[in-house]
Amino acid sequence: MKRTKKVNSEGPGLKVIPLGGLEQIGMNITAFEYEDSIVVVDCGLSFPDDDMLGIDLVIPDVSYLRDNFDKVKGIVITHGHEDHIGALPYILRELNIPVYATRLTMGLIENKLKEHNLLRSTKRKVIKFGQSINLGQFRIEFIKTNHSIVDAAALAIYSPAGTVIHTGDFKVDYTPVFGDAIDLQRFAEIGRKGVLALMCDSTNAERPGFTQSERTLGRIFDTIFHEHMNTRIIIATFASNVDRVQQIINSAYKYGRKVVVEGRSMVNVIDIATNLGCINIPDNTLISIDELKNYPDEKTVIITTGSQGESMAALSRMAGNVHRKISIGPKDTIIFSSNPIPGNEKAVTKVINELEMKGAEVIFQDTHVSGHACQEEIKLIYTLVQPKYAIPIHGEYKHRKAQAKLAMDLGIDKENVFMINSGDVLELTEEKAQVTGRVPVGAILVDGLGVGDVGNIVLRDRQHLAEDGIMIVVLALDGATGELVSGPDLVSRGFVYVKESDELMFEARELMAHVMEGCVSRGCTDWGRIKTNIRDSLSEFIWKKTKRRPMILPIIMEV
Amino acid sequence: MKRTKKVNSEGPGLKVIPLGGLEQIGMNITAFEYEDSIVVVDCGLSFPDDDMLGIDLVIPDVSYLRDNFDKVKGIVITHGHEDHIGALPYILRELNIPVYATRLTMGLIENKLKEHNLLRSTKRKVIKFGQSINLGQFRIEFIKTNHSIVDAAALAIYSPAGTVIHTGDFKVDYTPVFGDAIDLQRFAEIGRKGVLALMCDSTNAERPGFTQSERTLGRIFDTIFHEHMNTRIIIATFASNVDRVQQIINSAYKYGRKVVVEGRSMVNVIDIATNLGCINIPDNTLISIDELKNYPDEKTVIITTGSQGESMAALSRMAGNVHRKISIGPKDTIIFSSNPIPGNEKAVTKVINELEMKGAEVIFQDTHVSGHACQEEIKLIYTLVQPKYAIPIHGEYKHRKAQAKLAMDLGIDKENVFMINSGDVLELTEEKAQVTGRVPVGAILVDGLGVGDVGNIVLRDRQHLAEDGIMIVVLALDGATGELVSGPDLVSRGFVYVKESDELMFEARELMAHVMEGCVSRGCTDWGRIKTNIRDSLSEFIWKKTKRRPMILPIIMEV
Repeated sequence: MKRTKKVNSEGPGLKVIPLGGLEQIGMNITAFEYEDSIVVVDCGLSFPDDDMLGIDLVIPDVSYLRDNFDKVKGIVITHGHEDHIGALPYILRELNIPVYATRLTMGLIENKLKEHNLLRSTKRKVIKFGQSINLGQFRIEFIKTNHSIVDAAALAIYSPAGTVIHTGDFKVDYTPVFGDAIDLQRFAEIGRKGVLALMCDSTNAERPGFTQSERTLGRIFDTIFHEHMNTRIIIATFASNVDRVQQIINSAYKYGRKVVVEGRSMVNVIDIATNLGCINIPDNTLISIDELKNYPDEKTVIITTGSQGESMAALSRMAGNVHRKISIGPKDTIIFSSNPIPGNEKAVTKVINELEMKGAEVIFQDTHVSGHACQEEIKLIYTLVQPKYAIPIHGEYKHRKAQAKLAMDLGIDKENVFMINSGDVLELTEEKAQVTGRVPVGAILVDGLGVGDVGNIVLRDRQHLAEDGIMIVVLALDGATGELVSGPDLVSRGFVYVKESDELMFEARELMAHVMEGCVSRGCTDWGRIKTNIRDSLSEFIWKKTKRRPMILPIIMEV
Repeated sequence: MKRTKKVNSEGPGLKVIPLGGLEQIGMNITAFEYEDSIVVVDCGLSFPDDDMLGIDLVIPDVSYLRDNFDKVKGIVITHGHEDHIGALPYILRELNIPVYATRLTMGLIENKLKEHNLLRSTKRKVIKFGQSINLGQFRIEFIKTNHSIVDAAALAIYSPAGTVIHTGDFKVDYTPVFGDAIDLQRFAEIGRKGVLALMCDSTNAERPGFTQSERTLGRIFDTIFHEHMNTRIIIATFASNVDRVQQIINSAYKYGRKVVVEGRSMVNVIDIATNLGCINIPDNTLISIDELKNYPDEKTVIITTGSQGESMAALSRMAGNVHRKISIGPKDTIIFSSNPIPGNEKAVTKVINELEMKGAEVIFQDTHVSGHACQEEIKLIYTLVQPKYAIPIHGEYKHRKAQAKLAMDLGIDKENVFMINSGDVLELTEEKAQVTGRVPVGAILVDGLGVGDVGNIVLRDRQHLAEDGIMIVVLALDGATGELVSGPDLVSRGFVYVKESDELMFEARELMAHVMEGCVSRGCTDWGRIKTNIRDSLSEFIWKKTKRRPMILPIIMEV
């Protein structure tokens, strides 16, 4: 590839250090380090895996930032989705770092900081597209892109060692609903000057072709509204997809329907977007949920959360007949303007079945477009930017691998394509690029107010408890003589329905008494050994009788 | 629709009583009752929902068969998938009923009965396609169909009140790999004579068009084999899909590769199919896994279980580096000849990522065809059979609803299309059809050896334990005076990592001591009230401090 600009190729390298996001969807955070300066791009959370029982969310371990706090000049955010901003409150309450983001992104961040009481203490600056900020030895430029949320940005990260383009999550939308199309000219311009590395969204890298424009849905909504003049229309979509909501409101206005926005997160985002002018709602279109009764069903639209089948979301509550204000019937048309996120398929199907059982018509096909670039868009960006190095980001391994293949097809040398892991320190100069070290990374589990107090041991216990429950054996020993003064008693939870398993519990109790007699007759007074005896013999007995392995917990009291 | 045959329309009706399978995928079982005769079609299990923690499988409640045991003439099985045969051992060990099925289906059933020691006590008869059996007032004819397992049958159920056609799971495959195409002529012939009701597979009723022939995959495998002459090939598919395995073996033979079959269930099915002549394996093609080392990688194929990402299956063990005999590397091409069953998407993706991280190439698109009829096939069957009543079966509500719509499009009156539920008694005569009653139905949970001993209370406890763990408060009271002689002690599991939560546990212990002092000073000796006090105050304290709700279990010992 031709390169028109020279950088100080003799100096130190630019370090690219992903602190999360490369092993899973979510938890996007990357540190860029050059000498005494570190800039952080994004600070996202991820949602717990199925085996992380009871966990609310997962945030990245930022020990590296803590250890190099004096170098950290700022956090730059590409867009306002949870997997890019969700960990901010947890990180900022420990490390006070200034935050830079575009308008709506900052609106959503501020909403979050307010909830966590961090608004006052956090330095924030709203950046416009095309604008740059200087952070230590870095200059960061925000470039307009398109995505499933308004105000998404790519970043040009200028360092003395060269320029990196980080796309964030993006698609190419030539006809966006709000604002401009992606600034392809700027990508070309920066590319022309020479780009060291491109870090590009891989989410849809397995999909051929081009992602459809968000605007195509406007016509589809119009058609559906036209064909359903006699029913109420309920549309579920992602709370943060302001453009989607805009298009639904456009159709509603055109067809003379009033609009209710339902679901806490949806109401929140629309409020913020309205205040910032990111959505245009005609006067007298929005009504409150309590005003619904003043209009005939066929003159209303409800835009709601719950498109992923989340059990507590508004749509699921409607489907399950537990929504306080809306009940579903044959005069409802319900549109899922979303695709199920992997893992949510069954929950979504459950809601669809429930809605259809109530007689509603459910539309769940062709009413969503992706927010991520497909193969042709990825190729376009590579061809405009012409990077020396390719670092596929955003997506699981298989998605990143698919982009790596694309990059090689476009002529980038195999050894210049980097499939790195979180924690790798990738050092880049014009001459060479290589992983030169590792920094500590990890996933920190958030459960209620606890951050990091649930680890592997607790999770393993929860899995064990979930599988077969617990049996507790309590007994009291005389502190002086070591004699058994009470018990052993058995209490179980989550194991069997005790009333119907009388015999089993009786035999288990007999066995425990027998074990204790054995201990006493052998003069064994070591509590550890008594507990081991209880655990082993009860566990074996239960397994033989039931083929189950409840957790067995002996408790000895000294009296 | 024209009807050429008259049945005794004055007599009693034929009762169609689904005992499972209409509210979920799986657990297919339907009773057909006419006067003193009951015939049961299929006897399947279903797999537990995500919230059925620790449950291995779910079987139908057959109280109705138990209560009418003297009427039950036999169980007729359509094909050998778990959701059609899996509950047999559990039902047969209580209700000894003869079982009728085609060859491979019976082979798979016998394998199951052997495991449960029920082979000797169960009367069994293998039925050929075209053959009929008389069961009380019923005659049942087995009609050849196609499906993702060999020897699938539809049933013509002849009763004095009229004929019902039950398709089982099916597709129309004009060019099947093994045996004949679906016997469309017979469907037409029976239809011509007059069919009361059609019970037709709805699984793919939302999908337009025609399902591809199984044979199309043969060419695809050939192409992949041709393009991967230099790597080992590993193909994961459903253990029961004998035709799929046949085609892989065909390609392997053509390209001079030896074949290993890996995974217990796969080995089992192939053994049974081989013994019954349902698969043709050329001599010197199959080798054992231990012989693999005698051949170069590029001369071998491994056909394996694990296409659904099941954590204990062979492919997942290879991907996770814990398979004892096979390790994955850059010289492997791995094909997923399967689609993820809803709910398994994340598990499958995890395995794909792990395989790709080891450098293997993974192919997971266009290498599977469905075993179920799409819309055009469903229309074909309706048009051949011309039933008076339509009873969509096999599929979730939304799938059955989609078939109901198709049936109405084909001219069946809306009031002759029945969206019934498990437990409904649908009574059919030539003149009318209506739900005339309900029978008890339900899901019985199997956990280890326990059948039905885990119910809602136990499950709710498991969910509670899974979410936030358990805190146990033990104390010993003097039996005579009611005085506190030991404790309260606190033990927790699955709640917090205790060593790092010293302070919290200390405060909780203080609080418990304080609560007990309160009880003593108020002279409260009622154990129930003491426990309630402990539970309430500890629960409130923990919630305030952590926003979690562990199960709180007070245990009082009397000494």
